Amino acid sequence: MPNVLTVISPSTELLHRAQRVRRGAVDLAQCSDVQRAAALEAMAVALERHGDAVVTANTLDQQAAAREGLAAPLLARLKLDGAKLADCIQGLRQVAALPDPVGRRQLHRELAAGLELERVTVPIGVLGVVFESRPDAVIQIAALAIRSGNGAILKGGREARNTCQAVVTALQEGLASCSVDPDSLDLLTSREEIMALLQLDGLVDLIVPRGSNAFVRHIQENTHIPVLGHADGVCHLYVDQRVNVDMAVAVALDAKTQYPAACNAIETLLVHRRSAQRFLPPAIQAFTAAGVTLRGDEQAMALGVPEAATPEDWGHEYLDLTLAVRVVEDLEAALEHIRRYGSRHTDVICTEDETAAARFLDTVDSAGVFHNCSSRFADGFRYGFGAEVGISTQTVPPRGPVGLEGLVTYRYRLRGHGHTVAPFACGDQRFSHRDLLET
Amino acid sequence: MPNVLTVISPSTELLHRAQRVRRGAVDLAQCSDVQRAAALEAMAVALERHGDAVVTANTLDQQAAAREGLAAPLLARLKLDGAKLADCIQGLRQVAALPDPVGRRQLHRELAAGLELERVTVPIGVLGVVFESRPDAVIQIAALAIRSGNGAILKGGREARNTCQAVVTALQEGLASCSVDPDSLDLLTSREEIMALLQLDGLVDLIVPRGSNAFVRHIQENTHIPVLGHADGVCHLYVDQRVNVDMAVAVALDAKTQYPAACNAIETLLVHRRSAQRFLPPAIQAFTAAGVTLRGDEQAMALGVPEAATPEDWGHEYLDLTLAVRVVEDLEAALEHIRRYGSRHTDVICTEDETAAARFLDTVDSAGVFHNCSSRFADGFRYGFGAEVGISTQTVPPRGPVGLEGLVTYRYRLRGHGHTVAPFACGDQRFSHRDLLET
Repeated sequence: MPNVLTVISPSTELLHRAQRVRRGAVDLAQCSDVQRAAALEAMAVALERHGDAVVTANTLDQQAAAREGLAAPLLARLKLDGAKLADCIQGLRQVAALPDPVGRRQLHRELAAGLELERVTVPIGVLGVVFESRPDAVIQIAALAIRSGNGAILKGGREARNTCQAVVTALQEGLASCSVDPDSLDLLTSREEIMALLQLDGLVDLIVPRGSNAFVRHIQENTHIPVLGHADGVCHLYVDQRVNVDMAVAVALDAKTQYPAACNAIETLLVHRRSAQRFLPPAIQAFTAAGVTLRGDEQAMALGVPEAATPEDWGHEYLDLTLAVRVVEDLEAALEHIRRYGSRHTDVICTEDETAAARFLDTVDSAGVFHNCSSRFADGFRYGFGAEVGISTQTVPPRGPVGLEGLVTYRYRLRGHGHTVAPFACGDQRFSHRDLLET
Repeated sequence: MPNVLTVISPSTELLHRAQRVRRGAVDLAQCSDVQRAAALEAMAVALERHGDAVVTANTLDQQAAAREGLAAPLLARLKLDGAKLADCIQGLRQVAALPDPVGRRQLHRELAAGLELERVTVPIGVLGVVFESRPDAVIQIAALAIRSGNGAILKGGREARNTCQAVVTALQEGLASCSVDPDSLDLLTSREEIMALLQLDGLVDLIVPRGSNAFVRHIQENTHIPVLGHADGVCHLYVDQRVNVDMAVAVALDAKTQYPAACNAIETLLVHRRSAQRFLPPAIQAFTAAGVTLRGDEQAMALGVPEAATPEDWGHEYLDLTLAVRVVEDLEAALEHIRRYGSRHTDVICTEDETAAARFLDTVDSAGVFHNCSSRFADGFRYGFGAEVGISTQTVPPRGPVGLEGLVTYRYRLRGHGHTVAPFACGDQRFSHRDLLET
């Protein structure tokens, strides 16, 4: 229900809390790799100790949500029982074991004799994390934030408030037992605070929204703080002229049905007119058997697609077992369709023609461009990042699935011995710009 | 005069022009390193050929500006005579010679047998570049855009319109003689188009503003497209307890006076109370001799600073020969002052104490943190980047001086042989996540 949110200035209390988190984050940024990993272990232990309290709080939230008639899928996402909590705790320990993204030297250069420049990765600062439902995501994002040296202000959905409170109490208790300031994490509980959080320029450095498309878009449109994430996931699969039909059918089926509610599931199938006759009949059979509703253009209908697509179907994100099908003139027409209707998330070509594949992978301007494999691989875990904050469809980095690496920035450090610019400006001294070897 | 701008929706004509630039940029992104470097050479040759026309157009602009009573510093920035144009053309050839930022493989990983992931740098797409005055910046930014494979929609100040038109005509003619689509560059000429440009989400990927603080801030507050740049440059120099006074005076003097209008000049001098008595008298003498007005707190005044600072002086960007001076209790008080009043641009510590230097460089959350050298080194050329688009004070990358590297993003390419996610989800197959060696 993002439409009921309105712009609200931060209260003095919220400003104080945000300043406290920022101070906590400054201290956290000084912690070593070992200290931050130990903090995650302490958070895991505290969650184990408070497991019963968390599950009890979640039962309360579930009962209230059921009374209020929350839809079944949302109820399912709200649930945090003992088994799911154990998974979360295991995930937290996995994040602890990931390589440290902080303190990496990206550049080391002598500018002139005795004047050395370094570029070193540092935490971003304070994350503002806003969720709809999903109390398990609180644990995951808190783990990623602390591991990367960032403070976090968390705001869960109202329906999960007891659970979120129990979780954050446990996480803070864990932090209190080690060298990380418990103030590095804070939980907001009132609805007004979401919008106020978005106005905390200078105190919050990055907003991470997790929720529906409308929710994320609303967040993006109401803040000038950078937002990490994506609203739409309109992924395409294009079946080229020279195609292995069996492979293309299997890949398309997986890309649509393996988890249709995911942002990386395909929404539109584009088929080269010269392969339509071979590909569409078996594809229609397979999709129909899997319970997928197909909506096609005229040519697709002539080959058996039962329902007619309207112009609104192109670029529509169904997030369920519906798929739009369009027969295109050639590869260029497919590229044009994706340019027009795509959301720069992930797009796939199935082809045996390497030239066509190269053209597709070079031209489609999406975070992920895939050849002969399912769009569902677009995921931080599957890419080997260990965990992900989310998937970004922005053009500027971080783009695609974002892991710990996306939660750090960098800082230039320059060390001299009284160096001034004047002698370089007048030509008395010259820059050496000599890259220094790593030791 | 940013306050007279109002939000204006893009006209159909502007949308068509932006779409044309985007198509040009898609083709440009396919060009090789050699082709893009050759395009810059062609742009340089065309500017040489049209040199007289550009200088004549600039004379017209200068005459009109003088009639309208444009302030002297703005008139100076507007000027583009033969000598300055020759410098610009030389700069263009230097950008041509810079290493290609496109097509770099940042990651190469086998996810499973036959399933290979790459992360490769690609151009961002289309830049929206907005200037106040400075027609020479049009040449520099156009060069950086084309070199990095990006299209650009340029909007210069009204006072430079004849010059900008002559420059862009020449640049497009240069592009027409080589393999880059001349539509990759476009020049907007009406005032309304600035604000409309800021609304071109999806057609423009990054806004690059170049102008006054108020101008940049106004741009930032009126677009949801990412903005590369900085509004304020409030740089501090902190003189620690254990300090080489001669060195600190020389560094502070350079940081303030070598070019006081620059964003990387210092605005506030913080002095440890234990070094104030040794440092301030010679510093005051040097600054006064250099024509700098000093405004100090009570303790600084007791040591000879002639004028009293008001609370408004802390965090104020003078951009001229004025400097605020504050005596602080210790390093921690200096850090707190910078946290409160700084703009995360560049801050300097002068100290002989390595522990204090390390604390400062680890803690101050600015794009540049310097030890015993002038803040004026915070610059793309001086860092060895060859050229810069601007300096960003945002926390998220790109941060600090931004060169070609800041004008590219990346794309994930995944190549398989019919791989689907289902067997990995059910545990029949496992990811190998094996990083592949560079060949």
